[in-house]
Amino acid sequence: MKVLIVHAHPEPQSFTAALRDQATATLQAQGHEVQVSDLYAMHWNPVASASDFTSRENPDYLVYALEQRLGVKSQSIAADIRQELDKLLWADLLILNFPIFWFSAPAMLKGWIDRVLVSGVCYGGKRFYDQGGLAGKKALVTVTLGGREHMFGEGAIHGPLEDMLRPILRGTLAYVGFEVLEPFVAWHVPYISAEARQTFLHSYQQRLEGLADDQPLVFPKLAQFDEALYPL
Amino acid sequence: MKVLIVHAHPEPQSFTAALRDQATATLQAQGHEVQVSDLYAMHWNPVASASDFTSRENPDYLVYALEQRLGVKSQSIAADIRQELDKLLWADLLILNFPIFWFSAPAMLKGWIDRVLVSGVCYGGKRFYDQGGLAGKKALVTVTLGGREHMFGEGAIHGPLEDMLRPILRGTLAYVGFEVLEPFVAWHVPYISAEARQTFLHSYQQRLEGLADDQPLVFPKLAQFDEALYPL
Repeated sequence: MKVLIVHAHPEPQSFTAALRDQATATLQAQGHEVQVSDLYAMHWNPVASASDFTSRENPDYLVYALEQRLGVKSQSIAADIRQELDKLLWADLLILNFPIFWFSAPAMLKGWIDRVLVSGVCYGGKRFYDQGGLAGKKALVTVTLGGREHMFGEGAIHGPLEDMLRPILRGTLAYVGFEVLEPFVAWHVPYISAEARQTFLHSYQQRLEGLADDQPLVFPKLAQFDEALYPL
Repeated sequence: MKVLIVHAHPEPQSFTAALRDQATATLQAQGHEVQVSDLYAMHWNPVASASDFTSRENPDYLVYALEQRLGVKSQSIAADIRQELDKLLWADLLILNFPIFWFSAPAMLKGWIDRVLVSGVCYGGKRFYDQGGLAGKKALVTVTLGGREHMFGEGAIHGPLEDMLRPILRGTLAYVGFEVLEPFVAWHVPYISAEARQTFLHSYQQRLEGLADDQPLVFPKLAQFDEALYPL
């Protein structure tokens, strides 16, 4: 399997970085190929803008998704986007590895999503959800957070974590066709002991070793909707 | 009322910008004061990083929220963050005005949230949800998107838009104490006529003129949970 880990944390020595390294080591030990995009280390530019295109279909008015679609064909899309898109297309498994900021991804990672999931390649027209451009690939979201596990779930103060992560799990990863696996979550990370962190690393290793048997989360399929996307 | 509009769109002539201008005009005509943070025009830096602090409590290991909490007291927090935080604290009403990118905010705006909603001022300890640091203020999310209205809601292909916006509505705005109003949504914007756009601008004007009577969305209150945040 070819694996792309996209990692975004402002502290190079973070526990989130230890999860990245654990994944790299575990997956390589199983014979998989691993590439890592460390967005802070790369000084990734997260801002989708007109500068992402060396020439434009419409230089007077920017419709970002339209310019993506044309730019990726005409090779006028920015080199940093093209490089990340190539890694993404190469991978069989994408791991997004990040600390929860405001119940979602840090801006650094959101800007990787905004810029790299290019219209016309990853989605477009009726190519989304199970018909998405990246169908056949798997995705795993691996997150660290400050909250405790009992603060999440039905009836808990923040509700289910999967509901908070819906724009990423469903609106992004499932939308472009990934089989989305259940997130791996390390809770209460800033406040726990070194031993508790080791326990998380160990269960992450076990999770990754058994990943092939994981059942993906369930999302809509286009066949459940008519031509105008009304439910059948 | 004092109103802060935070606007993030890569195209200066966008319909999203027309909504920003409509809000400014309508609210000023009612006698309110309006400030606008146009993040693309300001070349806002959306990346939370060690550079956000001129001095650090712990120079060897960055815990971003901790450095925010101390940096805002010791005035070692970056000037661009301090300026936006001052606008936020000045405002009685915050309007986040943006195009939906991947069922959430563009990275540019996510990075405003990551950097400006400073720990120790906007939230911290048991100061969240109805006890949040910005309690007493109101927030409105105004969005444009490409999808049609029938693609959202219970049973629709993408589910309710409010569920996709949960990390912003509940996990961010309600979390820091805002009374969160129902979002204003302009559907299918890239594909509609100039007349249809005028209709959206007109209904936005009417919505803003009646905003004082709007009932906020309902979110958890800390009194519903015990000291350890288990439900009572």
